[in-house]
Amino acid sequence: MIDAALIESLKTLVEPGKVLTDAASLESYGKDWTKHFAPAPSAIVFPKTIEEVQAIVRWANEHRVALVPSGGRTGLSAAAVAANGEVVVAFDYMNRILDFNTFDRTVVCQPGVITEQLQAFAEDKGLYYPVDFASAGSSQLGGNIGTNAGGIKVIRYGMTRNWVAGLKVVTGTGELLELNKGLMKNATGYDFRHLFIGAEGTLGFVVEATMRLERQPTNLTALVLGTPDFDSIMPVLHAFQDKLDLTAFEFFSDKAMDKVLARGDVPAPFDTRCPFYALLEFEATTDERADQALATFEHCVNEGWVLDGVMSQSDQQLQNLWRLREDISETISHWTPYKNDISVTVSNVPSFLREIDGIVGEHYPDFEIIWFGHIGDGNLHLNILKPDDLSKDEFFDKCKVVNKWVFETVAKYNGSISAEHGVGMTKRDYLTYSRSEAEIAYMKAVKAVFDPNNIMNPGKVIA
Amino acid sequence: MIDAALIESLKTLVEPGKVLTDAASLESYGKDWTKHFAPAPSAIVFPKTIEEVQAIVRWANEHRVALVPSGGRTGLSAAAVAANGEVVVAFDYMNRILDFNTFDRTVVCQPGVITEQLQAFAEDKGLYYPVDFASAGSSQLGGNIGTNAGGIKVIRYGMTRNWVAGLKVVTGTGELLELNKGLMKNATGYDFRHLFIGAEGTLGFVVEATMRLERQPTNLTALVLGTPDFDSIMPVLHAFQDKLDLTAFEFFSDKAMDKVLARGDVPAPFDTRCPFYALLEFEATTDERADQALATFEHCVNEGWVLDGVMSQSDQQLQNLWRLREDISETISHWTPYKNDISVTVSNVPSFLREIDGIVGEHYPDFEIIWFGHIGDGNLHLNILKPDDLSKDEFFDKCKVVNKWVFETVAKYNGSISAEHGVGMTKRDYLTYSRSEAEIAYMKAVKAVFDPNNIMNPGKVIA
Repeated sequence: MIDAALIESLKTLVEPGKVLTDAASLESYGKDWTKHFAPAPSAIVFPKTIEEVQAIVRWANEHRVALVPSGGRTGLSAAAVAANGEVVVAFDYMNRILDFNTFDRTVVCQPGVITEQLQAFAEDKGLYYPVDFASAGSSQLGGNIGTNAGGIKVIRYGMTRNWVAGLKVVTGTGELLELNKGLMKNATGYDFRHLFIGAEGTLGFVVEATMRLERQPTNLTALVLGTPDFDSIMPVLHAFQDKLDLTAFEFFSDKAMDKVLARGDVPAPFDTRCPFYALLEFEATTDERADQALATFEHCVNEGWVLDGVMSQSDQQLQNLWRLREDISETISHWTPYKNDISVTVSNVPSFLREIDGIVGEHYPDFEIIWFGHIGDGNLHLNILKPDDLSKDEFFDKCKVVNKWVFETVAKYNGSISAEHGVGMTKRDYLTYSRSEAEIAYMKAVKAVFDPNNIMNPGKVIA
Repeated sequence: MIDAALIESLKTLVEPGKVLTDAASLESYGKDWTKHFAPAPSAIVFPKTIEEVQAIVRWANEHRVALVPSGGRTGLSAAAVAANGEVVVAFDYMNRILDFNTFDRTVVCQPGVITEQLQAFAEDKGLYYPVDFASAGSSQLGGNIGTNAGGIKVIRYGMTRNWVAGLKVVTGTGELLELNKGLMKNATGYDFRHLFIGAEGTLGFVVEATMRLERQPTNLTALVLGTPDFDSIMPVLHAFQDKLDLTAFEFFSDKAMDKVLARGDVPAPFDTRCPFYALLEFEATTDERADQALATFEHCVNEGWVLDGVMSQSDQQLQNLWRLREDISETISHWTPYKNDISVTVSNVPSFLREIDGIVGEHYPDFEIIWFGHIGDGNLHLNILKPDDLSKDEFFDKCKVVNKWVFETVAKYNGSISAEHGVGMTKRDYLTYSRSEAEIAYMKAVKAVFDPNNIMNPGKVIA
């Protein structure tokens, strides 16, 4: 914890009332959606301008105070948790959209702009911001950029990275860098923009972002297809990708759907029960295109890859099909699940999944595994439900063992121990399963270049 | 120049005959397509494996020998020129496609694979590698990645960066890094892959790349539209982008087309002469889509933005329309042009272009300016033709002055002094027009992390 005199000097850098130290604020601004770390920041500071952010960073350098950036705090890797007396820099008051250009299709945003706010702004302009995920209603753009957020439309639109045309960052020395300036083409040396994207605030803080927008999709249409086994999902993906530009290709297991249906909020897609389901979405821009989708569906049935299926005929049906996938996370939260967010290349998914199933099943036959995820990206969300007869502590102790098996299997398949949630603190000590010692050494050296006093979100990503 | 004993020790690292020191090889492997620098390498070495590349880099560290990577040597910024006794590392014998995965749509390539070879391979697999440009027949993939090559389809498919799923690089210390491993989603700390892309070989050498492929475009169709002035091109772009996913949006001036038509190889698109022309391309996947394009064309005519136009009805017509744009470079090479490759945001293009026209016209009223470029990306190719009565030397002396004006104007518009050709040596000393002193200082520090002895392509990009 830092002392009262330091807090007073911090207060001189921002507007009156913009440094909080009350217990409730420390508690709520000191943590994200992870629950393993007790929040313990020294203070929360709310800058309103880039100059104030620079002043805070210079102050932190002078007094060797660690800073933790805070956005919507919806992170799942504890990258925005302040557990060690840090000062939290919260961007809630830097939440304005500053500019829009219709020819460039770009929006200049402060880092505290809520993801959904940007989506709504784009829609209002007849355009589309395509990065979307469950926490879009509270996550902030600065955090999306810091973690290179993914979500449900990555197969078509890519990660947050793809939509950042320009970035203003304040580095660990308080310097302001203006990276790429909204240009589409710029071959003038190292593209530091991409280094800061996904760096989880360890190199500097995002203080402004120029985001690109896209045309709105037309007549989005979803199919849910039931498959006889997991392997069949791959040729289905292949067949559809050949014919259509998919905007999503998700999957979930029968067990996952069971739990969602049991809540009674959404109807079953069709009567046939299948072990796995694929949800795919495309733009039915013309009747011809919709016919193409149906013909491909039929082809998949004839090949034995699909047992049954349905295609949405209305917006309501589209939404109902999506709920089968999107309601899973909330539904299973009731069982205090162990969660992991991992990826391998798409072609490796079936054998990878089978291997994990095998390992967990062998050692913990009473554990129920719920799989779902963005299979078009090779991104699997592994969820293990707590058996009712196990205490939370017992369950999570056993899951620690599972963690190791999962990461060993990820490493064996050359995969990623964090597909989209980031490293933060939760996966920091497992980083060697996905990055070599040499890479990690370079990461530390690069951090030292941009943050020589190690005050920017220290202890996150790398030790 | 390095001494004979060193050359002998270099020869022990590779297969017999894979170190060349004859005058013709030094001359041809020591330069790229730029002509301002006299090639003067000490030797050319041809590794065949990653291990050999590592051995060469370790040897270079030990003896403090500077290395220059060499691909197809089609660069336009002298990034692959060895003018100071360096050893050139040529990737001509690392030119194999190593693997292909149909589900992942990825190809594993050695760095010496020719761009066109990858395009042809993709086509053979029923897929598409969308990065394309004039030198695709000789440029190598390693060089494409080193310069983050762009080209004519960027508006739809982005730069080379977008297609690199994984990268193996040998850093300046000889360490092999395996970056991103072909994954679509990977949130495990700093994405060094993007740091190496566009670094022009100054941080390390690309020794293997996993490239993503796309589905093939369907029924590509082009329109050439004549506009009454440059400003009208912007609402035309806007109108078409609203309705269609454009695969290209190029422009050229009447003067440019004049020169191409004068060669007699390709017919005029229509009778009406206009000061500027836009060439746009889209996938006419259905008749409905083609009708939409025609309706938008009509709308543009009604608004007064377009005076005349034509839409291709066959592959032959498509190719003829493209030649109006693609033949410009070769056609005007006859006039020994001063060339510059610059970019601003799309919305700034009209006033930027007007300003440059004004400055050049005022000081050198007898200079003929030929504009063309990828206007959908804000990327302009400025070409000034040498008047017949000026000697080459006189002309290029005057152009040095133009350079300064151009870059000052680029800086004023927050643009890039190199949109897609890179910095190399030709633009190194102008880098401050596009990157701040702070950014350049960070670039030097980051280079020192990956290349502590400054042996990897020294003197390129940064001094």
